[in-house]
Amino acid sequence: MGAAVETPSMPEECRVIDPDTYFDHNRPPANLQWAHDAVAAFVGRQGSSRPIVLVTSGGTTVPLENNTVRFVDNFSAGTRGSASAEQFLELGYAVLFLYREQSLQPFSRQYSQRSECIFDYLRPDGHGGVSVKAEYTAKMLDGLTKYEKYKPQLLQVAFTTLSDYLFLLREITLILAPTGARTMLYLAAAVSDFFIPSHSMAEHKIQSGAGALTLRMNQVPKFLRPLVKNWAPSCFVVSFKLETDPELLAPKAKHALEKYGHHVVVANLLNTRKWQVWLVTRGQDPCLLQISQEQLLQGHDIEQDIVAELARRHREYTSAGALANASADAALAAAP
Amino acid sequence: MGAAVETPSMPEECRVIDPDTYFDHNRPPANLQWAHDAVAAFVGRQGSSRPIVLVTSGGTTVPLENNTVRFVDNFSAGTRGSASAEQFLELGYAVLFLYREQSLQPFSRQYSQRSECIFDYLRPDGHGGVSVKAEYTAKMLDGLTKYEKYKPQLLQVAFTTLSDYLFLLREITLILAPTGARTMLYLAAAVSDFFIPSHSMAEHKIQSGAGALTLRMNQVPKFLRPLVKNWAPSCFVVSFKLETDPELLAPKAKHALEKYGHHVVVANLLNTRKWQVWLVTRGQDPCLLQISQEQLLQGHDIEQDIVAELARRHREYTSAGALANASADAALAAAP
Repeated sequence: MGAAVETPSMPEECRVIDPDTYFDHNRPPANLQWAHDAVAAFVGRQGSSRPIVLVTSGGTTVPLENNTVRFVDNFSAGTRGSASAEQFLELGYAVLFLYREQSLQPFSRQYSQRSECIFDYLRPDGHGGVSVKAEYTAKMLDGLTKYEKYKPQLLQVAFTTLSDYLFLLREITLILAPTGARTMLYLAAAVSDFFIPSHSMAEHKIQSGAGALTLRMNQVPKFLRPLVKNWAPSCFVVSFKLETDPELLAPKAKHALEKYGHHVVVANLLNTRKWQVWLVTRGQDPCLLQISQEQLLQGHDIEQDIVAELARRHREYTSAGALANASADAALAAAP
Repeated sequence: MGAAVETPSMPEECRVIDPDTYFDHNRPPANLQWAHDAVAAFVGRQGSSRPIVLVTSGGTTVPLENNTVRFVDNFSAGTRGSASAEQFLELGYAVLFLYREQSLQPFSRQYSQRSECIFDYLRPDGHGGVSVKAEYTAKMLDGLTKYEKYKPQLLQVAFTTLSDYLFLLREITLILAPTGARTMLYLAAAVSDFFIPSHSMAEHKIQSGAGALTLRMNQVPKFLRPLVKNWAPSCFVVSFKLETDPELLAPKAKHALEKYGHHVVVANLLNTRKWQVWLVTRGQDPCLLQISQEQLLQGHDIEQDIVAELARRHREYTSAGALANASADAALAAAP
């Protein structure tokens, strides 16, 4: 047999639906209203100067059946997103963390990646209580202290499917839009490129008796375009590009910047993503960030470097925006 | 457009590869040798009379690319498998738990299903240590005590992909085969029905630029057949059938029993599986097990009833096997 995967070539307008149409034809997630209220209250509590970041994290699922037994998933444990959220918190940001249910969360991620379960860290204290085992105490206390310290600056919102994610992303960015340049959108989630529209999905579990299975999936509309143009046009927008083929990485990152008009693409390869990324911006050479194997082994996450550099660029962007506003105000005041 | 899912009808022999061929064409998981040694040592420690059960749990993944970014997954948190493993332990079984990495595990499952993270249960004790918060102490101590008590009778082996699962299943059942009737195989994992053979998989991440995507997947060979006939022919074998369409459930369960010649199918529907299952055996009416909403709310798991009833049947099976062996021995001794 031939290749099992085909991507037939057709004119783009025939295949990709309009982002707005997507929202008309799919059901919003159950937590949308809760998320709206929680995010609005959270943003309201941040005053007028604290920088805000929306970090998206983890992979989206695409159901293959309306009564879902099977789904297509994207490889992502949520490591980059959860590690980045920690760094933003340490730099004073208020963090909205839009993450895949059951994926890694800031601070606790150290304790949910491995095969250990919660009981492996605990022991009865002999007086009817339960304590953390001595060998884990120091690290656990450090994590717990940070977790408690930063909790008031962190709001977590969970998604599972592509559709949940897109509805929540639109809702949250619309709430953030008025905060303008002081907000960064850090879109690290691994979002599906293909989906099966609800109306052409199988109603029940697909039966295996009949032999081979052919799935036809549609391309997901590119939501970065309406996000940058319409939903939150003044925010500082960072997207991510993960590839496995090194040849495609730079051209695809540059193409995305030109197409969507946002600020930075963090480009990385599947096999080297934990120690090597490129920050790609329009009109400049890609900026390589890299850590050594020694740093990696000592627990230094490359997200520290990514977030520090992006926060620096975000400050410049915010100041430039404030200056532009100030001169616009001055011009307005000076106008006859 | 038409339905996005097609299962073209072809003669079965053209489509489904032989189970043995599968092992020739796929790579074994990295933990296969470790699992072999650990399982052999574990089984050796159980003496000659303790009942043994292999519980499989969680869903298998099917990669869509050789450099895996995307995969098809089966809906399963591992609730049934992990809850059942607890019950088998309480009934005196030695439990081999073959589970999907990051899915629920016995005892700790209560603390990993929800959005709480480990730090939500902990507080600094004020003397440089970390304790469980007062409100969680009683339940946590109960879980921890059981976890410590049953740990010597529990061996956990993790899988991720369909291929990992199948290699480990074969390896473990071959080790269990000599224990015969005193071993139950309780196959609760949600195993993929379709896969893309490695040689026809895309090498790199599938590109979305070209529009729609068509995936052709092959049917997974039915491994229950060699398992029952060749790998472990004397063990007591229980399989699971999950459907979403009530009309299909009973006929499919009976068909499976006739086709594979094993002992029990636990049949359930996606939407009612937490309070209603049928135990289906050859030549008998299906036996309905059901719990009330009140029981469910009070924390009674239906797995208690499933496992209790299956353990009873397993004892009968083991005794019948022992009797048959005894009369065969007697007949042999009496022979001239």
